Parts: sequence; C-alpha cells; structure tokens
Amino acid sequence: MEFSKKDFNEWYNEVVEKSGLVDKRYPVKGMNVWLPYGWAIARRIDELLRELMFSFNHEEVYFPLLIPKDQFAKEEEHIRGFGGEVFWVEKGGDSPLDIPLALRPTSETAMYPLFSLWIRTHGDLPLKIFQIVNVFRYETKQTRVFLRVREIHFFEAHTCHRSYEEAENQIKEDREIWKIFCDRLALPYILNKRPDWDKFAGADYTIAADTIMPSGRPLQIGTMHNYRQNFSRAYNIMFLDENGNRDYVHQTTFGISERVIGAIVGVHGDDRGLILPPDIAPYQVVIIPIVGEDKERIIEESKRLFLEIGGKYRVKLDDRDNYTPGYKFYDWELRGVPLRIELGPRDLKNNVLTVARRDTLERITVPRDRCIEEIGKILHDIQENLKKRAWNNMEDLVERAESLEEIAKSQKVNLIHWCGSEECARRIDQETGKNVLGIPIERDGTPGRCAVCGKETKNICYVGKSY
Amino acid sequence: MEFSKKDFNEWYNEVVEKSGLVDKRYPVKGMNVWLPYGWAIARRIDELLRELMFSFNHEEVYFPLLIPKDQFAKEEEHIRGFGGEVFWVEKGGDSPLDIPLALRPTSETAMYPLFSLWIRTHGDLPLKIFQIVNVFRYETKQTRVFLRVREIHFFEAHTCHRSYEEAENQIKEDREIWKIFCDRLALPYILNKRPDWDKFAGADYTIAADTIMPSGRPLQIGTMHNYRQNFSRAYNIMFLDENGNRDYVHQTTFGISERVIGAIVGVHGDDRGLILPPDIAPYQVVIIPIVGEDKERIIEESKRLFLEIGGKYRVKLDDRDNYTPGYKFYDWELRGVPLRIELGPRDLKNNVLTVARRDTLERITVPRDRCIEEIGKILHDIQENLKKRAWNNMEDLVERAESLEEIAKSQKVNLIHWCGSEECARRIDQETGKNVLGIPIERDGTPGRCAVCGKETKNICYVGKSY
Repeated sequence: MEFSKKDFNEWYNEVVEKSGLVDKRYPVKGMNVWLPYGWAIARRIDELLRELMFSFNHEEVYFPLLIPKDQFAKEEEHIRGFGGEVFWVEKGGDSPLDIPLALRPTSETAMYPLFSLWIRTHGDLPLKIFQIVNVFRYETKQTRVFLRVREIHFFEAHTCHRSYEEAENQIKEDREIWKIFCDRLALPYILNKRPDWDKFAGADYTIAADTIMPSGRPLQIGTMHNYRQNFSRAYNIMFLDENGNRDYVHQTTFGISERVIGAIVGVHGDDRGLILPPDIAPYQVVIIPIVGEDKERIIEESKRLFLEIGGKYRVKLDDRDNYTPGYKFYDWELRGVPLRIELGPRDLKNNVLTVARRDTLERITVPRDRCIEEIGKILHDIQENLKKRAWNNMEDLVERAESLEEIAKSQKVNLIHWCGSEECARRIDQETGKNVLGIPIERDGTPGRCAVCGKETKNICYVGKSY
Repeated sequence: MEFSKKDFNEWYNEVVEKSGLVDKRYPVKGMNVWLPYGWAIARRIDELLRELMFSFNHEEVYFPLLIPKDQFAKEEEHIRGFGGEVFWVEKGGDSPLDIPLALRPTSETAMYPLFSLWIRTHGDLPLKIFQIVNVFRYETKQTRVFLRVREIHFFEAHTCHRSYEEAENQIKEDREIWKIFCDRLALPYILNKRPDWDKFAGADYTIAADTIMPSGRPLQIGTMHNYRQNFSRAYNIMFLDENGNRDYVHQTTFGISERVIGAIVGVHGDDRGLILPPDIAPYQVVIIPIVGEDKERIIEESKRLFLEIGGKYRVKLDDRDNYTPGYKFYDWELRGVPLRIELGPRDLKNNVLTVARRDTLERITVPRDRCIEEIGKILHDIQENLKKRAWNNMEDLVERAESLEEIAKSQKVNLIHWCGSEECARRIDQETGKNVLGIPIERDGTPGRCAVCGKETKNICYVGKSY
C-alpha cells in the first residue's frame, strides 16, 4: 500500500482497488464493476440478511426495475424528494414510450399499487416482504466507491400493519435485526431520529443508523422509516377489520445499502489493507505452504489440512507455484483474510501450525491435532476483537462541543446540546459545514444549553460532516 | 384449476398465476412481479448454476446495468441485431445526459472494454467469468410469463482464450455443464447449431438448446456462442503470447434465462398444477397433519417429524388451523411439492407415514422409523421419473416429415431432411409458419431428400414454430 490510513481518502481509494473489490474504470460515472472478491463479500452480506429476514417471517420478492411516471408521482413528498435524481427511460428501440419509466431509486412506488391488490382484510396483515436489488440515483455530487454511487446494491424491507402500534413494533423488530446484523459485520453505530427536514421523502419519521469513518465523518448505513398512512392513502391500500370497518394500512420500511461494505473497509482496515470480520469474509483462513527441502510433503500436508478444515471453515489453499510466501502474505493481508496458516518444515516436525491473526498481526502456535477447535476459537476472538475495537474507535471519534466555534474547530463528530430548532441547525450547517444527525434514540440527554442559541434543553444530538 | 393441460396456453397462464409464481398485474407490459414462491425457485436455480460454474473454475462478477451508446455500438453486427430492442436512458433528473445509456440487453458491450484492460499476456488467460443479472429487451411481440418478457432474469458466462481450439474446448465444457444442469431440472433438450441467419448477433456460430413444450412448439432455453475474434477485434482485447507476439483473444459465451422456469412449468405440470423436480423445489416435502380426535398429539408428532426430516430435506409443515386437509392437498399439489406426508391417527397407531408422490399421485406407506432413508429414495425416484417422462414426451412431440405439406399439417416439431439452403428454409417459414432450428449436433443424418427442394442430402434438421 502506498498510502497510510492517516490519509484516509487516498488510503480508501487505494485499498478498494488494490484488494480487488471493484474496478472503477467502467466508463459511466459512479458505476463500478464488482470484481469476484468484492462481489463475494456483497453476496455473503446478502445471504446473512436473507437468513435473518426469513427467521423474522419476511418473504423475499422481486419487483420490476421500471416504474411508470404516473405511479411514481402519486405521493407528493416522495416525488418532490426523489424526482431530481431519477434516471428516465423514454425510448424503446427508436420509438418514444407512451409513458416515461423511472429506474427505481427505491421501490415504494413499484410495490404499493400491487399491495392495494394483495391486501383485502386484516387476515392479509401483517404483510412483510423484502427484496435485494440495485437502485439508481442520478448523483450530481462527487461519487466515491460504495459511499456515493449511481447504481446502488440495496436491501429494502416493506411492511403493512393494522395499526400505528403494530408498525411501531415492526420498527422495534427492525432495530433487533439491525443489531444482530451489525454484530456480524463488527460495525458500531448510533441510531438517530432524523430532524423532520432530513427524513425520508414521504415518511412520518426516519431513524437512521450512522457509523463514523476514521476521517471523522458520519456515514449513514441503514434506515428505518415509519410511513404511518402517508403512502397507503396515496396508493389506496386498505383493509377490512374484524368489525367490518375499512381503514388504510400503516407502513414501515427498512433499508440497507452497499455503504456497509464501505464502512467495513474504512472502519476495520489498516495500513496493510482490508481486515474482514470472519463472519462475512469470503475466505476465513488462507493456508500458505512454506516449501523448503521437503516440498512434496509440505504440499501434500497442506492439501490434507485444507480438506480437514475446509469442511468447517471457508478456506483458501494458496499453492501458486510462481509466487514467494512473502508475496502471498502481503497479498492476503491486503485482502483482509482474518487468519493465515503457514505450514513449513519446522511446523511439520513439531506437529504444530503457525497461525497469524490479521487483526492484531500476532503469530500463534497451535497444536496440529487440535487445530479445528483452536481455529474456531481464534476466529471467534477476531470477530469480537474487531467489534470491540471498532466501538472504541467510534467513541474516540466523538467530541463534546459547547459552541459553534468548538464544532467548527473539531475534526470529529460532535455531541452537543441542541434546542431542536431548524434555525440553530441551519446555523451549524452554514458556519461549520456540519449537519445535525438528529436525536440519538438510545441515549438520554442531561440538561444543558444549546450550543448555538444557548437556550436550556435536555436534547442532545450528534453533528458531523456527513458522507 | 379451471383449464386442462390440453388447452395449453390457457392452462399455462392459469398455473403460473394460481401457484404463486408471479403477479402479472404490474402496470408495465412484459414486466411481472416475482412472488415469494416463484422467486424461491429462481434463486434455487441461480444457486445451482453458481455451484456448477465455481466447480468449473468460473468467477462471479457484477457489471453495471447501463452501457454508453458509443461502447454499445462498437461491434457492427451486434448493434444491428440488438439496436431495435434496447431501452434507452437519455435523462437524469431534468437534465439530458451527455450520452444515451442502454439498459443491458446482454453484457458483451459492458464487459469487453474492461477485458481489454484486464488482459495483457497469456498468463491472464483463460478468463472465465459469469454474472446473474436482469437484462432488458423492448419486445414488441406479445409477451408471456417467463417465455417472452421485457425484464429477463439471466445468467451469462463470458470467456477469453488464446486460440480457437481452446475456445472450442470451452464450448465442450459448456455442454457438459448444460447436461448436468438440465438433469437437475429434469428437462430434455436438443442441441441445434443455428443457421447463420439466426445466430447471435456478432457470433461466429451459435449452438442453442431447444426443448419442446406440450403445445408442440420449440422453446430455446440456453445458448452457447463461439465469437472467434469478432468482439476482441472491435474492443481491442489482445494478449502477448510466449513468443512475444500479440494477438486478439478468442471468446465464447454461454447464456441461460428464466425461460427454463417456463419450461419446468410446461414440461412437467399436469391438470392439478405444477410438478417441481425435487432438486430445485423450494419445498421437497410438505407435512399435513390430519387432525382427528387426538389433535394435540398429531400436531406434536408432526412437529417432531418436521424437525427430524427438516435437517435433511427442504420441508414445510402446514399446520394452518383454518384450512381443511383437503384444501391443503389441493394447494400443495397446485404448487408442485414433490412429496406430501399425511400424518393422521391411524398412521400414528401403525407407526407409519402415508406419503403421496406428486408425479404419479401414488400413495405409499412408509415405516416411521425408516422414513428419512425412504423419503430420500422416493425423492430420487421422482427426480429420475420426471426426467425420463419428459424425455419420452419430447420424443412424442417430434414427427418425421417429408414435404412442406406434411410440415404444415403437423402440430408438432418435425424432423426433416434439409439441403441447408436459406431459400428452402425461407419457404418452410412462409408456407408452414415453422422455422428451421438448425442442424442437431448430437445426431447424425442418414441420406435422404430435402423436404422442400428434393435435393439429396445427409443434413437432418428440426423445424417448429418457436416461442
């Protein structure tokens, strides 16, 4: 690696390319080619989400990419919020289409006309579905791999309920799922209720999960929205209750994008490259034979080891002939494989394995005959260590601030008191370049004074220069 | 089911909707909503393909959806072949784009500019990648679920080689993969080398796999193309060989679309609905408790059975309270679950299970304590039986013909002698509505006379009214 993580932007660009996650040379701005290694990570995360959602009784569907303009425009706030960043198809072959078709920027307007056909009575509720698709946004700002792209790999869950309370319970369930999910990715986060002017277009409220990148900038990596009846009124999604009354359903959504991969890169990586949490690493272990005088035997023993532990873990045997062990160490460290096993003549003689942890760079000697169990323990320990380290690092990236000057001066995210007014939020934005992330929902405020206007308040909030 | 399979078109439409595969009410022609059950089948087939491709050393990638017009137009025949059916994006938000972007109808033109960057020397070859994506074609003909749609779920493998011989070997490997794949789907097929005027736009030659639907119409369900150097010349994909000479790579592709699902529906189904081959059925077994006097015990035993066999097979326990066993039988037969287990008081008493096969509708009594093994055997037998039955049925859907009159009269696919001329092929099309599928590559011809011009020839070929 050419750049140190201290030069975060340069380091980030270098690591996503050199580690083989994406190729940025595709000739459309903000659209990158997922290379096999990057795509393998994305697919592991997708499968993890599927498993989780199925266990919480969601079903998977796939809705078409293209949304007719009239359907797209039915919910007023939604079209106002998204209209400016939609790619439009207006021609098929050489013929103009009857009606322009939007490339989905998100799928409310594709799904909800069908929901109004699917839902008849309370017996059809709750409806809990999700899909994993790509969404498209015509970004005019500078693009950056995983963090701001125009074709976005995206998970979206949509639910319909009989009442506001049931929708609220769904949001609680989403938070539960989110916690399990982030633990598997070893990612720390803060749940913030976004201010009204920053909520999802059409939502009643938005809870966002923000992590903090080593640059000191917050990154939104997940969102949960309660729509109340805003969309169901626009799309006429009604149900008949037990008493024969008709009412509009209450709706929620839950969204996660490929930004989590950007977060994994940024939060866990180091000057040698990626560090992948074992739960989502395409390879958890790489075996590198150190061939010396007894080459054949070492290769043979490496294959035996591969077959033995390959049934239990995701293992790569790197027996490439034309590369030195040193090069292979460098290569797999760059790609963030959590555990490296070196197998050389001395290891064979002593009936041990030499194991190197990617997170701490420690080398550990493990008895050959207990290796399956020991590898399991170390992988578990790496997962836990990455998580703890990331949570600690995030805490260090937050700084208390009492005034606009302190906010402006700080390179970190600031925890401030805020009276809650849009005016004070706007002043923060204008005078510091940072934005209000909203009220943290898992943390109570103590009395204090608004960092802008000085008014007494119990509201605390995070502010930062969001990606 | 309202329609019998004898009324094939109506039956097909009814079964795809009633069995919960798709919802056709999405408001864009030829774009359907994949419902959970249909999507589960598609995903199982995708996973099967992934497994197969990985085992043959392909890697999975994901290329962007949108292709700039200048890239798209580089290979002349290709743009001539596909240009008329491309959806074009020409606007982002309210602004016209600098260059129109095509929604991929297939990904040669997205991939190959990058291939020319990736490949430098013979050490980079062979390059073997695939992706599973949706492609888009602006169909002007009548659309039909799975068979002719505008958003197509699609598998495409792309390879680059040093020589024509290596490319030919790749096509042989594709045929090997294709055979394994079709066996898992229990689908019969004929491999036909398409006539030149019907090959893939830009290919040197095309081998298509055609199956025959019960309507007597052939359905193309897979294709393998040898491109020679046609695309590598247009996209400048060159490599340096061992002797320091530069040459263009030889390329092949291999494509499979969601049409295979249409084939599974049409080829295997019956008047009760779908029949799914066990290898790709989302549920291989459904357990239906027949509750009588001893309800609690039956439910408890059903759950025990579910836990026991659920570790080994994909099993659904249908313990819905508000439906009769009769309704559940009907429902799961419609959805094509290969094996139904009925568990009632008498079964409990006799320590047996009553098992019903979806393919033959036979009911079999199985000892409770050997059920895991017996279920495995029966599922295997269903898979084999479906395959054999489908191959036999396909044979019955082919009829030998000696003249244009016989071709025109026949409701089936015809096996004819054909001199190989485009003129005779055009006459078949004009006078019978059938098209020449090309020369079968796994079947030798015997001498005979062209069904059109009477010229002596050893060429045999299939003709039919293709979907």
